[in-house]
Formats: sequence, structure tokens, C-alpha cells
Amino acid sequence: MFLCDIGNTSYHFLSPSKNYKESVSAFDPQTIEEKVYFICVNAEINKKLSTLNNWIDLSKFVEMHRYYKSMGVDRIFAVEAVENALIVDAGSAITVDVVKEGDFLGGFIYPGVNAMQKSYENISSALAYDFNFDLELQKLPKDSQNAISYGYLKLLYNEVISHNLPIILTGGDALKLKKLFNHASVNETLIFEGMKKVINQNSLV
Amino acid sequence: MFLCDIGNTSYHFLSPSKNYKESVSAFDPQTIEEKVYFICVNAEINKKLSTLNNWIDLSKFVEMHRYYKSMGVDRIFAVEAVENALIVDAGSAITVDVVKEGDFLGGFIYPGVNAMQKSYENISSALAYDFNFDLELQKLPKDSQNAISYGYLKLLYNEVISHNLPIILTGGDALKLKKLFNHASVNETLIFEGMKKVINQNSLV
Repeated sequence: MFLCDIGNTSYHFLSPSKNYKESVSAFDPQTIEEKVYFICVNAEINKKLSTLNNWIDLSKFVEMHRYYKSMGVDRIFAVEAVENALIVDAGSAITVDVVKEGDFLGGFIYPGVNAMQKSYENISSALAYDFNFDLELQKLPKDSQNAISYGYLKLLYNEVISHNLPIILTGGDALKLKKLFNHASVNETLIFEGMKKVINQNSLV
Repeated sequence: MFLCDIGNTSYHFLSPSKNYKESVSAFDPQTIEEKVYFICVNAEINKKLSTLNNWIDLSKFVEMHRYYKSMGVDRIFAVEAVENALIVDAGSAITVDVVKEGDFLGGFIYPGVNAMQKSYENISSALAYDFNFDLELQKLPKDSQNAISYGYLKLLYNEVISHNLPIILTGGDALKLKKLFNHASVNETLIFEGMKKVINQNSLV
């Protein structure tokens, strides 16, 4: 089974024997002859792939009424993978989605680490710090680096913890956030797990 | 008594009979002959004012050891104004400072409304929404506008409320935040109150 998660910058392929990425700008999907089950957040690529018979769009097999129209398909497939969990997908944005007994209860979007650091930096050069992920969460800061780190991280922490669910971290900055959420599990292939589940539920292979 | 709070864009003057602003780029402080008690966050203007005898820098009369070196003087004077309160100063950044029994316990910095909206917009055009300040705080969102509004506002709300102190809103976006913090008071002249307090404590007039 050949899976592919397509974002705005890369095609991420996974098969039992392979795990690699191809750049969106350089890769030609016609070069692949075997069957590929994919999801894709990029409208232009979606259009191109709809003309190729061996590329199967898994988003067509999801009960979309459980979600909302503008929700990213990557979030949807992460949610499909779990029964009871709060999912933190830390990429260019941080999406937080809550699933209880298999129901998607909703979620929110927070700027990603880089976006937020840039936001502080743009407000004032006096706020141009990297975040301190070893921040002491129980103590109000008395210095600039911790004042912005607390603003970004403690506020996210409060909300995530308040849902009393197992926390799953995924996405490029999952390991940074693991420093805050000690008890969270890190799962880099959550979206692929959702894809496999949808494939099995629909007996596609 | 003539007071002036100088930011990066304007001189804000207050006297019993006047309340007006002058632009930093156009205004010449030498044109004022009466005595002015001021605070100033702008290093260049501070230097210029130090040569004028009728401009009295109030930051020199504050016990700076209570604060930290890189803390904005506007935040310090807002803190000076209160005994027990959480101060939310909503400008280009949102600064949140906690004061208990006259002690400054610390504070944090969060991006201001415009900065945060821009941050979401820069991540993806699909997130280019104005925030919904009438957001239902107890419900996880299932649409994009509320997903970013919740990410920005609910997270701030949780932390602010957790300190169990009277909330004072000040700064240009105070009235927007008042929609979230129903019980908060809005005080547009908090910094001036801090300035008057320091003047009285030091018997400067």
C-alpha cells in the first residue's frame, strides 16, 4: 500500500518499505505507476491528480458532515486516526482538535512557533527572542524572553490541559512542544494512520 | 500639572484642561515652555528631552528594582497606579501584568489584535479573518473564523481569569476586549494615574 500526504511544500510518501518526501515544485506525479492513496491540501495539485487514475483521493471516503467545510484535510485525517484524544499538530500553524468517543468535538488554530516568533519580532525588535521551551509555567515572568514565551506557551498549555484527554503531538515542532507536555505522546505518522483506517473501513484494498 | 506619555508614534498630553496627542515625527518638545512630567519609551526622544530643563523624566523616581531592565516604562507606570489588579494593556502588543498588595508579581506579552490577525493571515489566506469578539468561549469551534478567534481570545481569557484579580483594561483595543471580560473595568488613563502617584509620592509639586 502506497500512501501520500501532500502539503503545500512536499509530497510525503509512505509504504512498508519507504518513507520519503518530494518537493511540490519539482515532483511530477505522473512518474508513479503504482496505485497511490493520497490526501492533499493543495487545490492545484488536487486538480492535476484528479486526472490520474492510479491516484486515489481518500478525502472522498470520509463522512464530511462530521467536520466543517474549510477544515484542512490533514486535520480531518489526524482526527480519523483516534477515538479519544486531543491532537496538537504543530506546523506553520498549530491546530488543536478534540475527539471524544470517536466524535470530533471541534478545534482551534494557533500560530506556529516560527509565525509567532516573527509576530513578536515585528511588533518590536525588543521582542526578537527565540521561545524558551524550558519555561517555568507556574511563575509569572520578569524578563522579556520569558514574557513572550509565557504569552505563547503557557496560554496554549492551559487550554490543552483543560480538556483532560490524552495528548498526541504531531507535526514538525512536536518535539519542541513535548518539553511542555511531558505526558503527551509524539506520533509523526498520525495522518497516515487515519488514511489506513479509512482505507480499511471502506475495504479499498 | 502637565503630563506627557510618549510612545513610538505620539506624545500624549494631559492636563486638567487638555487631553491631546502630537505626532512624534512632527512635534518639537522645545515649543513647550511650562513644566512637563513625562515618561517615554522612545530612546531617541529620551535623549533629546534630557537636554530640556522643563521636561522632567518620571522614570527616575521609580524604584526600578521592583521591575526588570527591559520592561517598558509604560507598563511600569500602569503597575504603579494599582494595588491589587491584573492589568491588560491592549496595544500593538498586549501586556498583562499582575499586582498583588502593591507588589509587581510579573507579567507576560501577547501579540496585539492586529499583529495576531496578520500572523494568521501570513500563515494562510484561508485564515485571513477578523476576530470574532462575540465568540462563545465554552464551545470548541467548527469553522475557520471561530477557530482562530478561539486560538487568540479563549487562550488569553483562560490565563487572565486564572489569577482571580480585578481586571483593568487599557490601551487602544480595551473596548474590544471588554466584550470578553464582562466584569473588567476600562481605564484609558491608567498610566497617567501612575504618573500622578509617583509625582505625589516624591512631592514633586
